[in-house]
Amino acid sequence: MNLLLLEESDFVSDARVVISGRRLSHVTDIHQASIGDTLRVGRVNGLMGAGVIQVLDTHQMVLDVTLTETPPVSLPLTVLLSLPRPKMLKRSLQTMTAMGVKRIVLMNSYRVEKSFWQSPWLAENKLREQLVLGLEQARDTLLPEVVFEKRFKPFVEDRLPAMLQGKRGLVAHPGDSGRYCPRQLTEEIVLAIGPEGGFIPYEVEKLEACGFERIHLGSRILRVENAIPVLISKLFD
Amino acid sequence: MNLLLLEESDFVSDARVVISGRRLSHVTDIHQASIGDTLRVGRVNGLMGAGVIQVLDTHQMVLDVTLTETPPVSLPLTVLLSLPRPKMLKRSLQTMTAMGVKRIVLMNSYRVEKSFWQSPWLAENKLREQLVLGLEQARDTLLPEVVFEKRFKPFVEDRLPAMLQGKRGLVAHPGDSGRYCPRQLTEEIVLAIGPEGGFIPYEVEKLEACGFERIHLGSRILRVENAIPVLISKLFD
Repeated sequence: MNLLLLEESDFVSDARVVISGRRLSHVTDIHQASIGDTLRVGRVNGLMGAGVIQVLDTHQMVLDVTLTETPPVSLPLTVLLSLPRPKMLKRSLQTMTAMGVKRIVLMNSYRVEKSFWQSPWLAENKLREQLVLGLEQARDTLLPEVVFEKRFKPFVEDRLPAMLQGKRGLVAHPGDSGRYCPRQLTEEIVLAIGPEGGFIPYEVEKLEACGFERIHLGSRILRVENAIPVLISKLFD
Repeated sequence: MNLLLLEESDFVSDARVVISGRRLSHVTDIHQASIGDTLRVGRVNGLMGAGVIQVLDTHQMVLDVTLTETPPVSLPLTVLLSLPRPKMLKRSLQTMTAMGVKRIVLMNSYRVEKSFWQSPWLAENKLREQLVLGLEQARDTLLPEVVFEKRFKPFVEDRLPAMLQGKRGLVAHPGDSGRYCPRQLTEEIVLAIGPEGGFIPYEVEKLEACGFERIHLGSRILRVENAIPVLISKLFD
């Protein structure tokens, strides 16, 4: 936790917050902070700054906060991620959030196991926990938006064209076809990432028909959890 | 498993292997392969090619193999990784191996918890399991070399200067000092990566005294498991 993220409900006045639970434990156990210490804080979807510990006991921590800094810039990127298995979903959400992605579409594709859609980790509060961990890691405050698209064809045919309007669509697909991942882009990108095993040819063709370009990362095939940071760091260097 | 990695002990003749255990289960359960199917195979530290299934039952699989392709190129990179917690170590080893790193030094630093050095995952056969998973993922056959350096100062003072000879040393260290991670390098690199919480200033200074340059990845602080693929994909684009 490189930033203590403050929820609206933590504020008892404009400049004072009261913290308990997981964040209190982290500050006492990991940071081993004391009264008078200054912590880096940020308000969800708001400014960042410093918080000075006024009260600290086993039940609560009271901080006086000064919030003046804007959060780091976001990436001009929407990720369409084929729903990964729950453990990988959690890590992927944290990674994307930490790297500055603000629009995430969790979508279905042929090789997504149906059971993944039943995961308790898709509940709104569970998803939000992962996003918060990503923000705390990267010192950011802007929560990404996460959308579900449980049916591939209606999504790609009916909603994706509007989402792609004015943006460049890229579909990451291992293999000889397509070009090597472009680098240091500045335009708005919509990046589609397949499940373990990849998109099936029909899906790549549907995305191409919608205007997406095929890209790859060379002959080494990476797991989704590594492909995400590698693709993002090449696209927006 | 995008490549079936063949051990020396699998070969019953130059062109025939017998497989059992984990790999057999994977081929039957995940790939759902049958007699006559062709699998992508590679000999540990040797050539890659195709294997045709001759026999397949619950106990064993017999393949006739033709090995003619060289494995993908390795990175001109040695990674000095501060020993991460066991779960992250496993993932980091797989990631580095999948991305083509062939020399890995697991080293101590101040913020490495002493207990991490007691992990059963540091046993030679356990480490090798992770490397094999990385090779199978990326379709490579060349096992990385993994070395332990359990004491920071003697390592950096006595052995690192020779290791750095003719190479460029970079130490990834978040913060305002140092330059942004360089890209598309072609020279031999030795890259030092700190533990969660980073190197302490003394350690960065010792590495700098040895000839290392400080680099960073911007204001967003990434977890080690993400910093590894991001650094590698920027350095060797």
